[in-house]
Amino acid sequence: MIKALFFDVFGTLVDWRSSIAREAKTLLAPLGHDLDYAAFADAWRGEYQPSMEEVRSGRRGYVLLDDLHRENLARILPRFQLQGLSAETREALNRIWHRLDAWADVPEGMRRLHAKYRLAPVSNGNIAIMVDLARHNGIVFDAILGSEIARDYKPNPAAYLASARALGLEPSACAMVAAHSSDLAAAASCGLKTAHVARPAEHGPGTGETKPTVKVDFAARDMGELADILDT
Amino acid sequence: MIKALFFDVFGTLVDWRSSIAREAKTLLAPLGHDLDYAAFADAWRGEYQPSMEEVRSGRRGYVLLDDLHRENLARILPRFQLQGLSAETREALNRIWHRLDAWADVPEGMRRLHAKYRLAPVSNGNIAIMVDLARHNGIVFDAILGSEIARDYKPNPAAYLASARALGLEPSACAMVAAHSSDLAAAASCGLKTAHVARPAEHGPGTGETKPTVKVDFAARDMGELADILDT
Repeated sequence: MIKALFFDVFGTLVDWRSSIAREAKTLLAPLGHDLDYAAFADAWRGEYQPSMEEVRSGRRGYVLLDDLHRENLARILPRFQLQGLSAETREALNRIWHRLDAWADVPEGMRRLHAKYRLAPVSNGNIAIMVDLARHNGIVFDAILGSEIARDYKPNPAAYLASARALGLEPSACAMVAAHSSDLAAAASCGLKTAHVARPAEHGPGTGETKPTVKVDFAARDMGELADILDT
Repeated sequence: MIKALFFDVFGTLVDWRSSIAREAKTLLAPLGHDLDYAAFADAWRGEYQPSMEEVRSGRRGYVLLDDLHRENLARILPRFQLQGLSAETREALNRIWHRLDAWADVPEGMRRLHAKYRLAPVSNGNIAIMVDLARHNGIVFDAILGSEIARDYKPNPAAYLASARALGLEPSACAMVAAHSSDLAAAASCGLKTAHVARPAEHGPGTGETKPTVKVDFAARDMGELADILDT
């Protein structure tokens, strides 16, 4: 019996791309900058996997995602002729990751799921980011699990297994919820149940997974449909 | 400016003594046992500090409080002629720590405090206990911090400092809330703000601290008064 739901956050619960593009424009346009803000968001996010791979591979010790975001921002600024930004502006940009907007179906869907299940992000984001995203979007989590508890990044097994262990649950009593089949495949290989939620516009219209490419236990169009499925 | 409130849990938020005594009776009386259940609760809790001291001193690696509770129960059972209990009954007793009742003022007081502050237990209890206590009592925490994050027990500094760091905050932006002056003195020595809440009946009528014995930033009769003080 499933007792806890673990959530991927970036892409599954929050629309990082639109939020970063909009908020970066709000910060940079008044400073006289003019750039393709969607491309800026994509470029920043593009550094995400390579930077975590240093930690996953063991070449580097565990680093908070807040710090990786900061390093990755420095890496992409020259591509957008932004290398002259002040330290304050760079820090303000980094804080956008703490106030990304949830997809529209998330707050109500999570509220329904919380009535029956323990909910926790199992994200590569650190605790401070997750706390702020939850408050920004009115989501109630029972705990913040994931990379900072495991001191490792998904899809390494430690991220899933340490999260189940923190709740005192067998992996099979936990279901990973994500919009990315790779995340679900890794969770399944650790013995967790899996639920896919479609986010077809994650990287822009028509770019995301409309359905899973791997075998999953549940598949839903959005968090409301997932609540329908899991309530039955 | 204070941005987060850290809560001691056993004694400060929940009435462990009455809950353990009542629930132990519910489990054991039908099996034909007759004992002083308040004394049983006190004896079990009496093993708490000595068992954690093994970890704090470095003589033993970090152990979850769930496991210490289990060991401590085994230690006291002979004193109450309960050494013949089945493994299932002992495990059922250990689970009582997951459903202790909050003091009456806690749910509403915490709800008010949550509107303005990030809230987290900084308890020696592990994440699974804290998640279950919060759900049992309708408390919303933003994260579960404390011993399992620090892998050390209060009042060692790591427990407070790792909690502030997990939220990305300076210690001075965090206030420890507790009914025990020793906890507050340790938090203050780490640079946290401190708030005392009186729990005069923690170990039975007239046994707890009615006011702090150390200098604190705030002192309140209950969580409602603390919300009054911190709202102004």
